Amino acid sequence: MRAELAAIVGPEHVTADPPPHYLRDATEARGLQGHADVLVLPGDAEEVAAVLAWCYERGVPLTPRGGGTGFAGGAVPQGGVLLSLERLRRVRSLEPQRWRMEVEAGVTTADVRRLAREHGLLFPPDPGAAEQSQIGGNIATNAGGPHAFKYGVTGHWVTGLEVAMAPGELVRVGGPVRKDVAGYDLRSLLVGSEGTLGVICSAWLRLLPAPEATLPVVAAYASVAAGCAAIERVLAAGLVPAALEYLDAGTLAAAAASFPGGLPDGCELLVLAEADGSRAEAARVAGELAEVLAEGALAVERPDPAALWRWRDGVSIAVTTRRGGKVSEDIVVPLERLGEAIERTVEIGRRHGLEACSWGHAGDGNLHSTFLVPAAEAERAEPAAAELFELALELGGSISGEHGVGAVKRAHQRGPLHLHAAIKAALDPKGLLNPRKKLPDDIAPPAAG
Amino acid sequence: MRAELAAIVGPEHVTADPPPHYLRDATEARGLQGHADVLVLPGDAEEVAAVLAWCYERGVPLTPRGGGTGFAGGAVPQGGVLLSLERLRRVRSLEPQRWRMEVEAGVTTADVRRLAREHGLLFPPDPGAAEQSQIGGNIATNAGGPHAFKYGVTGHWVTGLEVAMAPGELVRVGGPVRKDVAGYDLRSLLVGSEGTLGVICSAWLRLLPAPEATLPVVAAYASVAAGCAAIERVLAAGLVPAALEYLDAGTLAAAAASFPGGLPDGCELLVLAEADGSRAEAARVAGELAEVLAEGALAVERPDPAALWRWRDGVSIAVTTRRGGKVSEDIVVPLERLGEAIERTVEIGRRHGLEACSWGHAGDGNLHSTFLVPAAEAERAEPAAAELFELALELGGSISGEHGVGAVKRAHQRGPLHLHAAIKAALDPKGLLNPRKKLPDDIAPPAAG
Repeated sequence: MRAELAAIVGPEHVTADPPPHYLRDATEARGLQGHADVLVLPGDAEEVAAVLAWCYERGVPLTPRGGGTGFAGGAVPQGGVLLSLERLRRVRSLEPQRWRMEVEAGVTTADVRRLAREHGLLFPPDPGAAEQSQIGGNIATNAGGPHAFKYGVTGHWVTGLEVAMAPGELVRVGGPVRKDVAGYDLRSLLVGSEGTLGVICSAWLRLLPAPEATLPVVAAYASVAAGCAAIERVLAAGLVPAALEYLDAGTLAAAAASFPGGLPDGCELLVLAEADGSRAEAARVAGELAEVLAEGALAVERPDPAALWRWRDGVSIAVTTRRGGKVSEDIVVPLERLGEAIERTVEIGRRHGLEACSWGHAGDGNLHSTFLVPAAEAERAEPAAAELFELALELGGSISGEHGVGAVKRAHQRGPLHLHAAIKAALDPKGLLNPRKKLPDDIAPPAAG
Repeated sequence: MRAELAAIVGPEHVTADPPPHYLRDATEARGLQGHADVLVLPGDAEEVAAVLAWCYERGVPLTPRGGGTGFAGGAVPQGGVLLSLERLRRVRSLEPQRWRMEVEAGVTTADVRRLAREHGLLFPPDPGAAEQSQIGGNIATNAGGPHAFKYGVTGHWVTGLEVAMAPGELVRVGGPVRKDVAGYDLRSLLVGSEGTLGVICSAWLRLLPAPEATLPVVAAYASVAAGCAAIERVLAAGLVPAALEYLDAGTLAAAAASFPGGLPDGCELLVLAEADGSRAEAARVAGELAEVLAEGALAVERPDPAALWRWRDGVSIAVTTRRGGKVSEDIVVPLERLGEAIERTVEIGRRHGLEACSWGHAGDGNLHSTFLVPAAEAERAEPAAAELFELALELGGSISGEHGVGAVKRAHQRGPLHLHAAIKAALDPKGLLNPRKKLPDDIAPPAAG
């Protein structure tokens, strides 16, 4: 096995003894650990397709892996070939005057954003862990982030993909063009498919001129209800913030100490909005946001954006640190049910004897509902997580807004599962691409014809 | 057949003798005409699913039909059941304070936009023929329009769908939530599938606060090259217009007479840009647009937006009228090839003895390349259209940016057709949904496993 794969990618890029950090992702904090027969590091898209062809011929499962920052265990292998895209990190083209670039899957999210910024442009998705996470993984999970409220999720910025697909061919869908309705939308189907339909090797990305200014406004509230009412008022006022985030009291208990400038006593919900655009436009929107958020607030502040986002990026780790682990999900609910979802997250935790908190993308109704539990005891939180998914569906929402389904949520999938299974069977007939992910085990596609 | 369908939808909503206008769409201008055994007008989504179930049981083809404004013959039936969605026109909910509405497929595009506007909101897609076209058809073709440059195509504004799918079930994907990565992106797959994977019955739409002001800027150039250089300068300057359109000399020959305010002599390319946003922001962007567009221009004007868009909406009809028919395609090319595509459209026409022109969505590289020919002689233009598709592919583009493939472009489809065929076979195993559309006849899905 090793020798044959070495013939494809070179002997120095195959190991039968993968270092442990290749067998985990951010679900490490809930105790998830995988195993693989061999780790393969191809050097380009053709080698990825050749490795897939090899797997397909021999019936060997293949798990693709980006930066390993996922919260759903999508990159945690369960035997077979573990294929890391880390060596595919060429920037194939960058045309700032045409707002686009073509990058290989292993380029980090931070590098994509940095390159854009250096040319006065913006790649809007900011799902977090940017220095470690790779653009291919962001696309494979259709990652979101705070600025998805105004700018949409990762897939919205992908115009073309190069993908290794069964039984081992390199397929191109889309490209540098901004519109395309020939054929079915394979691009969108592959985005967010978590490596279960193909391995993303490179992508054409759409960029946008960078806003001249970004001006955050932060408001503290004495109750969840007061904060959520303020969030709803922002939309009702016709304001379009670039980001509209919240953090609840439990989250602040873990993270408030380092909040730039400090927080008022009795803050039960912190709302974080950001205006962007030209200097004048950002100032106008920030002013209106401050006015709308002030009603019923304990305090309204205008922090420095760099300091604020640095702090915001550290929230997840601060929460993990509090008890040495966490089980964190990313349910979505319609905006008007946000307050209920925040409060019921804490209630579910209480019923299961677990400290619980949430924060997230308020404007998108996307909560990071989290149970604090040491990694070694993470199983204790699984029944609580299951209740959380039921809650999301009961409130008219979804079990995942941005992390994906991966290994940890597949038993909780709802909806027309037979159609998802039919798609999987059509594009990965041997079921070798990232097996035991995304879909439940016991779902079969409908019988043909 | 008629009696059984009458039992589902009521006898007054079935006819074996469909009025002729049900058997055509905008491809009438190129002589396309269909036939159907029966026209069925269901009254709600459940009846649509029941009709599909009836078709699936008996192996009868079903062609869904919206407003019949398509340019690709997608709604032109080729036997079997013709199902019009026109009676599904309930607005199921409208929640302006949450920027969303749920509408049935038969609501006209104009009504969707009007309802949004009456509540201070914007439904951005504006594919044209808004009073006749229906939102279900817009979604089924993933329609675009001038403002897709800033706001994206129709699919970008759809968060949920209710779809009748084989063998006759009503499926819901997504809903009022703004994010969802559970399962594969069936929503995007169904958007733009032109009725070949399912019949869209209703949709959840996302809205946006309406911009306070829209300020068009129009510039005339003495050559295609000068105009295209100006278009590229807009992007390079980091300006984001809401729309960035062009019209070439041949188009202006048909349509210039009614241009508000008149055009300067010698105009070979007209560029139409629009700034929007708050009053101050729109004024700032319009000012910068005027400055950037002025270089090398014969004239720069700031027309009244209502008069300008009324004129722009009439361009397609003005071009049709000139020779009593037209064969109009909607190729897409990378922005930097726009000028070449404009000039080669005219050359292709010349080689085939046809007057040719183009206009369209410059910023998206999306041309409406058109051959003027009476409807009765439209066949003469088919070899020219075939060359046009080759041109689009040669320039790194696509054969369709917004009209879809329908009946007229399916032989010109390129790319991984076996994957498209596999999807079709997975979701419509009997091949009864809008047959002989979207995909070429001779493409079979790959053999399973």
